[in-house]
Amino acid sequence: IDKRNTGALQNILIDLHPADIAQIISHVKKDERIYLFSILPPKVASSVLAELDPPLMEELTEELGVEKISAIVDEMDSDDAADFVSSLPDEIVPEILERIPEEDSDEIKQLLHYDEDTAGGIMALEYVALPMDATVEQAIQEIRRLKAEQEVTDVYYIYVIDDENHLVGVVALSDLVLAEDYTTLKEIMKTDLPKITPDMDQEEVANIFRKYDLVSMPVVDQENHLIGRITIDDIVDVLEEEGSEDMAFIAGAPDEEITEGSISKLARARLPWLMVAFLGELLAAFILNQFDVTLRHKLMIAFFIPVIMAMGGSTAQQASVIVIRGLATGDLSLRDTGPRLLKELKISFLNSLFFATVLFIIVYLWDSAFFAGILSVSIFVVINNAAIIGALVPLTFKRLNIDPALAAAPFISTTNDILGILIYLTITTVVINFGM
Amino acid sequence: IDKRNTGALQNILIDLHPADIAQIISHVKKDERIYLFSILPPKVASSVLAELDPPLMEELTEELGVEKISAIVDEMDSDDAADFVSSLPDEIVPEILERIPEEDSDEIKQLLHYDEDTAGGIMALEYVALPMDATVEQAIQEIRRLKAEQEVTDVYYIYVIDDENHLVGVVALSDLVLAEDYTTLKEIMKTDLPKITPDMDQEEVANIFRKYDLVSMPVVDQENHLIGRITIDDIVDVLEEEGSEDMAFIAGAPDEEITEGSISKLARARLPWLMVAFLGELLAAFILNQFDVTLRHKLMIAFFIPVIMAMGGSTAQQASVIVIRGLATGDLSLRDTGPRLLKELKISFLNSLFFATVLFIIVYLWDSAFFAGILSVSIFVVINNAAIIGALVPLTFKRLNIDPALAAAPFISTTNDILGILIYLTITTVVINFGM
Repeated sequence: IDKRNTGALQNILIDLHPADIAQIISHVKKDERIYLFSILPPKVASSVLAELDPPLMEELTEELGVEKISAIVDEMDSDDAADFVSSLPDEIVPEILERIPEEDSDEIKQLLHYDEDTAGGIMALEYVALPMDATVEQAIQEIRRLKAEQEVTDVYYIYVIDDENHLVGVVALSDLVLAEDYTTLKEIMKTDLPKITPDMDQEEVANIFRKYDLVSMPVVDQENHLIGRITIDDIVDVLEEEGSEDMAFIAGAPDEEITEGSISKLARARLPWLMVAFLGELLAAFILNQFDVTLRHKLMIAFFIPVIMAMGGSTAQQASVIVIRGLATGDLSLRDTGPRLLKELKISFLNSLFFATVLFIIVYLWDSAFFAGILSVSIFVVINNAAIIGALVPLTFKRLNIDPALAAAPFISTTNDILGILIYLTITTVVINFGM
Repeated sequence: IDKRNTGALQNILIDLHPADIAQIISHVKKDERIYLFSILPPKVASSVLAELDPPLMEELTEELGVEKISAIVDEMDSDDAADFVSSLPDEIVPEILERIPEEDSDEIKQLLHYDEDTAGGIMALEYVALPMDATVEQAIQEIRRLKAEQEVTDVYYIYVIDDENHLVGVVALSDLVLAEDYTTLKEIMKTDLPKITPDMDQEEVANIFRKYDLVSMPVVDQENHLIGRITIDDIVDVLEEEGSEDMAFIAGAPDEEITEGSISKLARARLPWLMVAFLGELLAAFILNQFDVTLRHKLMIAFFIPVIMAMGGSTAQQASVIVIRGLATGDLSLRDTGPRLLKELKISFLNSLFFATVLFIIVYLWDSAFFAGILSVSIFVVINNAAIIGALVPLTFKRLNIDPALAAAPFISTTNDILGILIYLTITTVVINFGM
């Protein structure tokens, strides 16, 4: 690379899989990255770009001229092209769409209408569709023609349509291969398909693919007109993306790209989550101030604040993560709210009994049976309360159409810290005032 | 169902997709579940069983006789059969393997050797393999024969082998369709394949599928002999499984099934994670006891313990989740340890400055510039320390070959609670002793 030996480098790179080139490009310095990318032919560059993380994609396109970008967009499949164009600065988009053939730019404009988290956002317009009375031989010729024109790449299914472009069935390529040449598609097509519309959430689409072990699915509009197709490789990306997002939210962090370079951007993105925890715990400090008299009476009460906070927080996290994950995979639905809460309460009841007993013994040996009693009752109430909140909050978020994963840390843990302290110190204050 | 109208129910069920039957069976009462499952023909029952969650699978098989189980196993694909047999009680396995044809039981025994989290654990033995000099026509006839015998279902690739069963290439079904009948496989096969061996971790296999947008891959042994194949539907399950597991671990919970019915089993599974938090925070209570004199000097110090704990814990969680996710997807490797730590430190530096400033202003208004100074220095140190620990612990776990996701809650948050309290009270004690 140092010698900028363009010819030799091009030869090496072109033999590699675009995913491997993307990996190499991700791991070199910025100026080398721009150089390596600039020497790729448009066709390879477009495949590589589709494999790159968004921050690197943006970095590279900033350095390229409108002309080069247009050439790259022209080589992309419609779904990758739409994703890429939507990531470009708004001011250059019209210029780029003008430079590519009208047919392609119309397709991209059409796809740009859909929200990127929906079926419309991940579907592509390159598919093989044929009328019902077409024969197997005609189908094979059509695939051959489209492949020769590089209009489609991998084909697993042929979509069968009527005169008005209504989807009537699909034919698996393996069934096509096995049928006789003169068989019509109508005779070998499957018709009982789960219906995917472009406004369907991508997570829901992924669950359908997973449930029925599919590799490709047609997308239809409300009137059942065929408008696109989704393939399994896009679904695999969706699963990874949604998994990363949920995981980040559960840990109280934004879903950031590992390759994002800007420190201040990253710090700003993480700040809101920290802010929720900060403000919540400041409130806890003011609450503790209200119990000043109780704490002065017996300082040891303060020593157990971390135990109470952590047990409440951990229990709530456990209850929430199973609910969040269940809602994401579709294994749990809002109908299950009551039974789920009851189940969490039963589990937390057993565990709270255990910890109440252990804590009683420890504090009894350390201090007194009186204080041990206060603490064991407090931890019992705090744990059971936390289990209900942990299960209920994500279910409520789901009902309000907010991503349930946002319900986890820091929201649930901060709420439980505050409630835990309130429960603990209220019980303590009441017992001390009336009991002594 | 109430009337046990077997004939009518069978007719309804048989028309449904096995995944839909599995869903219905998951949502009815236990005795109805056993009844519905018992009336399914073995072929349908085997497909349904493969779709069920493990706890329900166990519940159903407990009620079935060895004979019925054997009939079901016989109908399964080798990979599903091996998964299922490995979930059965050890004492009945030999009996079942005896009752099915020797060819099938040999295959299952072979697959049972592999760890279930490896490529060997998810591969199946049903594939189409042909010699290099076979023609397209012969290949199509072979697929037709295997499909007729129900030895293979969906075929996307044909594997090309030499005389000694060494894998030499693959042919995509779509390329097969487009080639002329007399073309040999050698002419149209692809040879540059990432190599998957049976001992490879399933997460690594999933990353290869994702990187190269694959739908099916052959598995070879060390000498490159073809021994099995993995399809994308298994990979989708792996992604979902590993995602659930990581997410649960990050929240400090076991990876439990939503359908698991036993409350005591669930409570016991969650206990170890709570135990870590409990013991850690007890240690924190003993540490606070050591700072008894400092806390008596100024009770307000105790009010800010939750703030210090939460800010340290949240920062560490944010740093750890990006590292854990990066290691899982392969975007981050152990080589990146140094740069990653530096990046986390830069991010936490910005955010710690922000919170130190805000906290100074609040405490200055509430109490005094002196105490405000102590708190802002403490939170600054605690946040930066937490960022390093959050990023370093999962990387260290990875180096020690422990699942990095185990490094998250409660391990990281408890450690940070203890360290946060130690840092905060040490700074406070030192400043008060020397400063006043």
